[in-house]
Amino acid sequence: MRTSQYLLSTMKETPADAEVISHKLMLRAGMIRRLSSGLYTYLPTGVRVLRKVEQIVREEMNNAGAIEVLMPMVQPAELWQESGRWEKMDAELLRFQDRHLRDFVLGPTHEEVITDLVRREITSYKQLPLSLYQIQNKFRDERRPRFGVMRAREFLMKDAYSFHLSQDSLQQTYDAMYRAYCNIFNRLGLDYRPVLADTGAIGGSVSHEFHVLASSGEDAIAFSDTSDYAANIEMAEAIAPAGERPAATQSMQEVATPNVGTVAAVAELLNISEQQIAKTLFVVGVAKDDAPASLVALVVRGDHELNEVKAEKLPQVAVPLQFANEQQIRQLVNAAPGSVGPVGLTIPVIVDRSAAHLADFVVGANKDGYHLSGVNWDRDITDYQVADLRNIVEGDPSPCGFGHLVIKRGIEVGHIFQLGDKYSQALKAGVLNEEGKHQIMTMGCYGVGVSRIVAAAIEQNHDEYGIIWPDAIAPFQVVLIPMNMHKSVRVAEATELLYQQLKAAGIDVLFDDRKERPGVMFADMELIGVPHSIVIGERNLDNRQAEYKNRRTGEKQLLDLDQLVSQFTALLK
Amino acid sequence: MRTSQYLLSTMKETPADAEVISHKLMLRAGMIRRLSSGLYTYLPTGVRVLRKVEQIVREEMNNAGAIEVLMPMVQPAELWQESGRWEKMDAELLRFQDRHLRDFVLGPTHEEVITDLVRREITSYKQLPLSLYQIQNKFRDERRPRFGVMRAREFLMKDAYSFHLSQDSLQQTYDAMYRAYCNIFNRLGLDYRPVLADTGAIGGSVSHEFHVLASSGEDAIAFSDTSDYAANIEMAEAIAPAGERPAATQSMQEVATPNVGTVAAVAELLNISEQQIAKTLFVVGVAKDDAPASLVALVVRGDHELNEVKAEKLPQVAVPLQFANEQQIRQLVNAAPGSVGPVGLTIPVIVDRSAAHLADFVVGANKDGYHLSGVNWDRDITDYQVADLRNIVEGDPSPCGFGHLVIKRGIEVGHIFQLGDKYSQALKAGVLNEEGKHQIMTMGCYGVGVSRIVAAAIEQNHDEYGIIWPDAIAPFQVVLIPMNMHKSVRVAEATELLYQQLKAAGIDVLFDDRKERPGVMFADMELIGVPHSIVIGERNLDNRQAEYKNRRTGEKQLLDLDQLVSQFTALLK
Repeated sequence: MRTSQYLLSTMKETPADAEVISHKLMLRAGMIRRLSSGLYTYLPTGVRVLRKVEQIVREEMNNAGAIEVLMPMVQPAELWQESGRWEKMDAELLRFQDRHLRDFVLGPTHEEVITDLVRREITSYKQLPLSLYQIQNKFRDERRPRFGVMRAREFLMKDAYSFHLSQDSLQQTYDAMYRAYCNIFNRLGLDYRPVLADTGAIGGSVSHEFHVLASSGEDAIAFSDTSDYAANIEMAEAIAPAGERPAATQSMQEVATPNVGTVAAVAELLNISEQQIAKTLFVVGVAKDDAPASLVALVVRGDHELNEVKAEKLPQVAVPLQFANEQQIRQLVNAAPGSVGPVGLTIPVIVDRSAAHLADFVVGANKDGYHLSGVNWDRDITDYQVADLRNIVEGDPSPCGFGHLVIKRGIEVGHIFQLGDKYSQALKAGVLNEEGKHQIMTMGCYGVGVSRIVAAAIEQNHDEYGIIWPDAIAPFQVVLIPMNMHKSVRVAEATELLYQQLKAAGIDVLFDDRKERPGVMFADMELIGVPHSIVIGERNLDNRQAEYKNRRTGEKQLLDLDQLVSQFTALLK
Repeated sequence: MRTSQYLLSTMKETPADAEVISHKLMLRAGMIRRLSSGLYTYLPTGVRVLRKVEQIVREEMNNAGAIEVLMPMVQPAELWQESGRWEKMDAELLRFQDRHLRDFVLGPTHEEVITDLVRREITSYKQLPLSLYQIQNKFRDERRPRFGVMRAREFLMKDAYSFHLSQDSLQQTYDAMYRAYCNIFNRLGLDYRPVLADTGAIGGSVSHEFHVLASSGEDAIAFSDTSDYAANIEMAEAIAPAGERPAATQSMQEVATPNVGTVAAVAELLNISEQQIAKTLFVVGVAKDDAPASLVALVVRGDHELNEVKAEKLPQVAVPLQFANEQQIRQLVNAAPGSVGPVGLTIPVIVDRSAAHLADFVVGANKDGYHLSGVNWDRDITDYQVADLRNIVEGDPSPCGFGHLVIKRGIEVGHIFQLGDKYSQALKAGVLNEEGKHQIMTMGCYGVGVSRIVAAAIEQNHDEYGIIWPDAIAPFQVVLIPMNMHKSVRVAEATELLYQQLKAAGIDVLFDDRKERPGVMFADMELIGVPHSIVIGERNLDNRQAEYKNRRTGEKQLLDLDQLVSQFTALLK
């Protein structure tokens, strides 16, 4: 490609409305333009990267034995009513009517459509397992689309679905998909981690997320510093402190804590560490029969944070998690939220493992302006239950038994689920099994955010000059930058020859043939992140050489023109 | 690919709801499944063909210098209001609101979005000409979707748009696109014709359609039997009959024609040919100032048909064309439609060239049950105008001046337009020209129905056993059919070896490894239209041979196993 015949559309200014670096750089590098909130047009440089990501994903899906299909983006409401998601999903599911006033949705995902397809096509256990995938646009009407294509409303996704008659078979395909995802992110040249994840609204049991590591990532991921263990912080287990709980040495007594409402303030007033305080949070419990839902007390150590995903998994707690308001708390214990504690409660009390390991600790007295000190489990509070309730913190022992946890930030770009029979049961998707009986299938689903990968790759790979693409997904593998070509026939001819040779060698090469100053060309090529550049100038041509530069390392070297193509091809490997 | 790891999903039964052969065969061959009216899921065999068509289109667009972009399917209403199409388009334009109650459309095409993009990105004449294209889903809420993917609501299209400052530049790109389209359809292996076409609702001046010829085609195309001339019958010019109009020999007189209302009946009653009759049609004229629209009389020869597209181009006629109802006609001439004629009218009378060449002809008398015979132009009707108003018929002289016209049927799969400034004017899309002045750009647009091509290819290439794919877009280039492989290790091993060799040679090969009778395998492979098959059986293995068969010609030949791959590769070229 010659720049003069291309739409480079780079911008010098940093766009005011872009918050994250990938969004800024995608705008500045001429990769995308905003059409409307959460809707982006991909300019040529954006399309080139997107198509390369798409092709790697496609090849690895094929290698994993998944078969490509293509489902419509517009889907009839009936299937969503059948699965129950028509009612359950909020306004993120875009609903509309066609000219005949029939209800449709713009597909945010395709579980319903694929399950409907498979229940019609597949009749016998002999046709299973089956893995189908597509690379298709999705639409999610996000309340607040942001960060460019990172959280857009219309976006490109690879979604795969697998169908089985046994958990064993599902596990095998799940493992194959896990490996395929590793292959994808390895080939993309990204630093990533597969992490244990929550299954959330999609449903199912086992689940892994694939995160591209980047300090700007929205998600926190916990890793063992010794083993392969990695989990989304939502999921990372906080294990019980080692050893026996210390014995009680103090008696419980009321201490005045006027006008202090936070753990930090109580610790300061009483001159103790936050670790010696247990904080109590009230949440709404599950309603039993016709009685109104009572509250549930959740207790964590003063220096710890409640993990809401873990709390939602407690059988006593209503989903979604709902904190009690001040009025509900006062009705229960007649104290402000800053003075509450677990002593004397008649509601369920669930204590985090670390809080349950405390002795002689401080809690709110359920009386405004007072706390209790010298509190001890089993002596002062007898009816309670212990569970993993908190977020892990750096330095916690890894739940795998090896090493300690460190926390990094990541951007979720893939998610694989063992769905079970959530959709197949709702849509009665079954086959005849070996015994000739009708059996509901079990399912897996496997998503990759194709357009999101583009943004995540930039979050991970950039510097103050612009993007630094991994070779596999660079818009161009190499750029030829001639010095003053419009004044030097020799430079023009040498560059043209190199351009033809590199193209003939199957290399994706950009020839910057603009009438621009060298500085402008260097800046543009660094901004759009071409990983390799070759500068052709009069001086080096005297020695039949040209200067190669590596965008990532800054390394420069002179290459002989006559061997440049073979040397460069070797360099790419 | 091995059939056992594939989703073949062929069907023996012909689906009842499919009207055209391509729809039937796409269902039977397991290429598509209906999700809802006009919405289809592509099964693996369908996707394979679709992607091959897509890739050929992409490569030829790139070769023509167009640059790929990708625009959202969801588009904000504001742009459509700016172009005026928000009001002008009927319910085919699907409008909806997002969660914030803002208006959007599902893009049926992308003129507005691309013109908006270009007016923001392009500021100088130096950046022109520019051609951008995308391969993207479209949605048109057809009143009556039918014929499978031939007229679906959601479909895949390649749409390109070019921007210029002069008609010369537009013409150059238009010509390049014309050649690119020829390259596309040549590579696809289809019998097609570029034809002059009407610009219709999209607007603009020059336009060509690309038609795949098939007897089932919806469009009629007129060709010269001598030259390259080809035009949609809507557009094909009917030239005036040669020579002078014969002189009048009869005087005009009233003849009773009781109870005859059709040209055929009048001809029979009066014992004359239909060619001696002129039929008069009343349509609604353009309203002038505040006066109600009067009617316009259109006169064609009795054996000819009015061409509505031509009629709509008359300045006197209201668009869209609207025939007068019986009441309006009676108000004007006090006669039934079967007894009307041009004599004595005070409204505009426009006469087709062939009708205007008649002498001593018959027309309705504007009096129920009567006609006039011996009518002559200029003597009996003085105030009239001559125009090309009729459909051509086979045997008409070609308007190019060479040969005569023949009519064939075609399926429109591509359409290129010189748009002019319809959209750029509405959206004020201009650049600074060489004189430093703001100048509105002129545009071209160029569409290919990617999914429609798949159906059109089948309409043109099938027999009673199924589809016959051209090599370039076949789901598989060749299928290996082993005879009783599950009983013969020798057959299994020979087939496996061939499979690996063909794959290694880069050939898209299907290995039918199912435990099925040979008859079932042959029938399935003929149905899905694999163009080449190789049968591996015990008997031929004795001579280290296998039997090749060509799906289209039925030609069979024995190939030596040791040279099979090279022989087959040669055969593909």
